[in-house]
Amino acid sequence: MHAEIIAIGSELTTGAKLDTNSQWLSLELAEIGIPVRFHSTVADDHAAMLELFRGAADRSDIVLITGGLGPTLDDLTRQLLADLLGTELVLHEPSLAYIKELFEKRGRYMPERNVIQAKFPEGSEPIENPVGTAPGIWLEYPREGREPSRVAAMPGVPSEMRRMYANQVLPRLPQGDKVIMKARVNCFGIGESAAEEKLGDLTARGREPEVGITVHEATITLRITAHGNSREECQVAIDETKELIRERMEGFVFGEEDEGLEHILMRSLVAQEKTIAVAECGSGGVLARSLSSVNENDLFRGGLVLSESGMASDPLSIPAELIDEHGVISRAAAKFAAEQIRELFHVDYALFVSAFRPLDHDEEGKPIPNAYVAAASDEHTYVQDHVLVGDPQIARSRAAKTIMDLMRRKLL
Amino acid sequence: MHAEIIAIGSELTTGAKLDTNSQWLSLELAEIGIPVRFHSTVADDHAAMLELFRGAADRSDIVLITGGLGPTLDDLTRQLLADLLGTELVLHEPSLAYIKELFEKRGRYMPERNVIQAKFPEGSEPIENPVGTAPGIWLEYPREGREPSRVAAMPGVPSEMRRMYANQVLPRLPQGDKVIMKARVNCFGIGESAAEEKLGDLTARGREPEVGITVHEATITLRITAHGNSREECQVAIDETKELIRERMEGFVFGEEDEGLEHILMRSLVAQEKTIAVAECGSGGVLARSLSSVNENDLFRGGLVLSESGMASDPLSIPAELIDEHGVISRAAAKFAAEQIRELFHVDYALFVSAFRPLDHDEEGKPIPNAYVAAASDEHTYVQDHVLVGDPQIARSRAAKTIMDLMRRKLL
Repeated sequence: MHAEIIAIGSELTTGAKLDTNSQWLSLELAEIGIPVRFHSTVADDHAAMLELFRGAADRSDIVLITGGLGPTLDDLTRQLLADLLGTELVLHEPSLAYIKELFEKRGRYMPERNVIQAKFPEGSEPIENPVGTAPGIWLEYPREGREPSRVAAMPGVPSEMRRMYANQVLPRLPQGDKVIMKARVNCFGIGESAAEEKLGDLTARGREPEVGITVHEATITLRITAHGNSREECQVAIDETKELIRERMEGFVFGEEDEGLEHILMRSLVAQEKTIAVAECGSGGVLARSLSSVNENDLFRGGLVLSESGMASDPLSIPAELIDEHGVISRAAAKFAAEQIRELFHVDYALFVSAFRPLDHDEEGKPIPNAYVAAASDEHTYVQDHVLVGDPQIARSRAAKTIMDLMRRKLL
Repeated sequence: MHAEIIAIGSELTTGAKLDTNSQWLSLELAEIGIPVRFHSTVADDHAAMLELFRGAADRSDIVLITGGLGPTLDDLTRQLLADLLGTELVLHEPSLAYIKELFEKRGRYMPERNVIQAKFPEGSEPIENPVGTAPGIWLEYPREGREPSRVAAMPGVPSEMRRMYANQVLPRLPQGDKVIMKARVNCFGIGESAAEEKLGDLTARGREPEVGITVHEATITLRITAHGNSREECQVAIDETKELIRERMEGFVFGEEDEGLEHILMRSLVAQEKTIAVAECGSGGVLARSLSSVNENDLFRGGLVLSESGMASDPLSIPAELIDEHGVISRAAAKFAAEQIRELFHVDYALFVSAFRPLDHDEEGKPIPNAYVAAASDEHTYVQDHVLVGDPQIARSRAAKTIMDLMRRKLL
């Protein structure tokens, strides 16, 4: 069994809009074990659409179509599906009543042109749209000597499409041979090749479940994909693999799925009822942004976002002698800054990330640390030096994650 | 003349990756006046690819293919193009030498499997790839009684593809009947419907050049699209339309293309050699992030990013009496905060954005301002009150833009 996905609209073929529906539907179909062989996008053009619809229904057992169901003359999907079946559009009274009601609720009359949205190809079935005026269309396209091809047309608006797919289309689809389920385990503090070594045969090609490694701004994500006869079977296999990953990557795993280090940190702070503040230099506020995004309990009290020259000025009150002796980017300045922020904001914990300079080497050719991070509690201040290279934005994000990870390990 | 675009790869049809190449190429083709009728994406599958390549080369005058040119067994584009022409793959010695050299430069031997990347369908032309190991392929597919279809296969890696398209494919393409050029004018401080009213007939359907309105986080962008016989003709029409827009939208236009308010602000600061700092409350650092992103000259010295409870604590040193009398979200607190930040950071200008509370109404049912912004120079402090509603993230971004716009109008 194979599926294919068609997106309709000149706004897609001209490049004015990016089609993300086809990707989303492919992932959904994979979950019920149905492989997708083709995505197609076609302009609002009668001949081109008919050619594509015919070819698709002929070669694929499932055809999912998005777009072209609006009320304007450009919206051809409805008519083309009638042409595909060789029938006419007929009015579906309940759909018309529903669309009229929707307009009335918004305090408007239904324009005459919207009547077309209540018409359906003879022999097809309307699919209700609880959130918009465009109902979907379900039909079975007869194929000689084979099962009919199942065709569903859905609105192009992603939120309407996703809801209609999940509630009304998915239940009508046959189940594929194999179910696919995915899971993610997130790690920090280890390089990609070191992680690969630790994981050993877990990442071998052909292993079941598969384990793939991706890296994004120094966060390593292990992507587990399980194939099985049921969701239950996949879940068991995924749980076993997660267990193995946690054993082999001990200490580096911090979360799952969409969890970042900031979620883990904030969860601990909430449990401990402790507050936090930050200072960061040259970062544009990476730490402040991360912690703000999870600040429902107002435990992140705020921070200083500084440029390098800003760091030497008043808000942090770093003593001039300290800067003269050690410089702004130094272990001593980092320690002072973290402790100072803790007092300035009257918080339990403070984090600091320094700016970083271009890399330099000592006489033996070893790189000299060019950035410092620090974390302060009432008992202890931890400082770490860093050698940051490469893309500045990634280096900054890495520094911010490093100090959040250090706090997770040492202070929470 | 029509074009179509094909993206190759099971990682696309499974949904693991999103195809952005087809959109990019569509926009490029529009610029030289060539309309695109189809995008297709196909899995790494011999039969499916051949069917698609044949259909495409038959119905379209230009076929742009991305992906499937790697060295592994899954990479079928090369072989399929040979099948399309009915010829064999033959070794192209200069390409082989180039690929070998590329590996040597990286200090590695070329694996045997990479030899395949130097093979090309007999009758096709190699397209050099200055940045990767996969050369492209150019061929003309003969069609009875018609011009041959021009087919270009390019790597799937977007950076390699874009470079190859611009340098080697675009010069080989015929020019379409009409050139399309686009431009953008950015406005702030006016609502969408008020802008539409001011623009009048400029936004009428069918006007040449077209003017469309889009809104993103309170920034209004006017998108001009000109159709003409040459780039010069389009440019003249665009310039005239821009002039009309600036007349009708006087005072609201701040920039063009990708320019945000932060670019305009920073340009003035650089010209005046003045410095700036910010304080913001509950925003997660929208202002600090904007100004950091354009801070090459280090004139943005830094800022305070506070939570609402953070604002009442020490760093700003707002007097307790002021908070008791007026509250944290008040005109008086905003004025104090902006002036305080200016002193704390020893800068010429300071901006402040307060947190905002859920909206409340007075006895007459009028909304009570729920947020304040302020801008301070050595001569004057401007404070504005605001009624912020709707999505908090958009409301925050709107508040940050409002104060940058106020500074642009009053202080620079």
